[in-house]
Amino acid sequence: MRSPVPLLDKITYYIVRRKGKQVRPMFVFLSAKLCGTISESSFIAASLVELLHTASLVHDDVVDDSYERRGIFSINALWKNKIAVLVGDFLFSRGMLLALENKQYQLLEIVSNAVKALSEGELLQIEKARRLDIKEDIYFEIIRQKTASLIASACSAGAASSTDDEKVIEKMRLFGEKIGIAFQIRDDLFDFGSEDVGKPLGIDIQEQKMTLPLIFALQQADRAERRKVFNIIKRHNKKPEKVKEVIDFVRNSGGLDYAREAMYRYRKEAFEILHTFSHSETRQSMEDLVTFVTERKR
Amino acid sequence: MRSPVPLLDKITYYIVRRKGKQVRPMFVFLSAKLCGTISESSFIAASLVELLHTASLVHDDVVDDSYERRGIFSINALWKNKIAVLVGDFLFSRGMLLALENKQYQLLEIVSNAVKALSEGELLQIEKARRLDIKEDIYFEIIRQKTASLIASACSAGAASSTDDEKVIEKMRLFGEKIGIAFQIRDDLFDFGSEDVGKPLGIDIQEQKMTLPLIFALQQADRAERRKVFNIIKRHNKKPEKVKEVIDFVRNSGGLDYAREAMYRYRKEAFEILHTFSHSETRQSMEDLVTFVTERKR
Repeated sequence: MRSPVPLLDKITYYIVRRKGKQVRPMFVFLSAKLCGTISESSFIAASLVELLHTASLVHDDVVDDSYERRGIFSINALWKNKIAVLVGDFLFSRGMLLALENKQYQLLEIVSNAVKALSEGELLQIEKARRLDIKEDIYFEIIRQKTASLIASACSAGAASSTDDEKVIEKMRLFGEKIGIAFQIRDDLFDFGSEDVGKPLGIDIQEQKMTLPLIFALQQADRAERRKVFNIIKRHNKKPEKVKEVIDFVRNSGGLDYAREAMYRYRKEAFEILHTFSHSETRQSMEDLVTFVTERKR
Repeated sequence: MRSPVPLLDKITYYIVRRKGKQVRPMFVFLSAKLCGTISESSFIAASLVELLHTASLVHDDVVDDSYERRGIFSINALWKNKIAVLVGDFLFSRGMLLALENKQYQLLEIVSNAVKALSEGELLQIEKARRLDIKEDIYFEIIRQKTASLIASACSAGAASSTDDEKVIEKMRLFGEKIGIAFQIRDDLFDFGSEDVGKPLGIDIQEQKMTLPLIFALQQADRAERRKVFNIIKRHNKKPEKVKEVIDFVRNSGGLDYAREAMYRYRKEAFEILHTFSHSETRQSMEDLVTFVTERKR
């Protein structure tokens, strides 16, 4: 990541210091080991996936106009939109070059498809957010593209680094996709205080993001109630007491239970795929990782 | 460019309708023909180079917070930062996939390097803009990276689509780099009204961008004058009459002549490279194209 541009060096140093849980590289390595032997290619895949994830977070800072990320000030707040876009572009191109220099063409195709799906998923979300009455199938389409695509690419890239069997690679992609969907539902649940995480609640409601617990609750509601909730989301989404009202509405309609069940269903499907591999320490580690990302408290 | 996301389809349709002069694809095709025969690969190279140029313009809309581009409202003004970042990312990944699907790996490496240089060049400019006393060599380094890199990649990608001779490909890269530098100096001259183009003047001064005419003029000035000009750029760069004062200062110091001479020097060096090819209709067309981009009135 070294660059002759000192400003860029400073920012990448700052990004590296503030790195997250790095679950995506873990998915790469465990997938690689599950399908064969960890190789030089697995390390390149792990680096590339984390790099693109980081680049997308940096761009997301522009996108969401958010001032905090991972508990500290975002690149955007510290250095403004201008720089965040450029640093994201730099990281993207750096990742591409890393793979090109190592002739990892299949890997490049896997992750380029993920980047494409990611931007399409976010744009679909923005488009649908204008109309609040989105249906479950659109919700699943959005999270499949914007979250699940990168975890799916981590798993299939890991597999591709240790096997040539296209069927196995596709199986791992599907496994990753299901985990990614479960992961995002878990994230969406946090917004309603499904766990006592001390995290501020109702951020998605403030940003008019329609998530599964809310979509389900609205489906159950009568017309008058639905109109009332839409009105809060459209016009009073910055008033904490109004947002609290929506959260209570979702909790009382069984929206959290419904979403939690959906999450477990996807996780179960993922485990079923995982169990087509024979028992091993690696398979157990993968199970533990999946349990971690779906049970995590923050 | 088709996408199942209607919002994205609408935006790409809008982008395609408002396409610019498309000089970069022309450089690709002329370079290809100069070094051999135009092939399927040349078309892919031309598409990819224009696609990345478009993606960088879309991201630039975020970057510069500019409200107009090519005479009409920018993506940013119409659809906001959020969307511009995502659309740019979509175009980048779409371009990468286009090349990957066609196994154009050398092309990918050429353009990925250009994208990397582009973001580094812009960041270097932002970094140096904080200190106004930048030197000529930094100016040339910035424009080499942020403008010349993409034109250099257009020429080398075109060459690589019709020959395997690495020396010829490198020669065309160098040719494109010199053209790109001349092209950017021409652009920087516009800001001082070197031609009567009816374009608003002093935009770069307002944005505290230090360009060659200004850098040269400041070099010639005495300490008092320099301090006065720095003061305007730092504190009064939004006042039209003050900006006019800087423009007059640059004009009276011979800054325009100096920059114009530098531009012609780079163009001459480019022509010298071009003349290592024997005379042909293609070589003449390339000369005409170079003359067009360096003599253009807007």
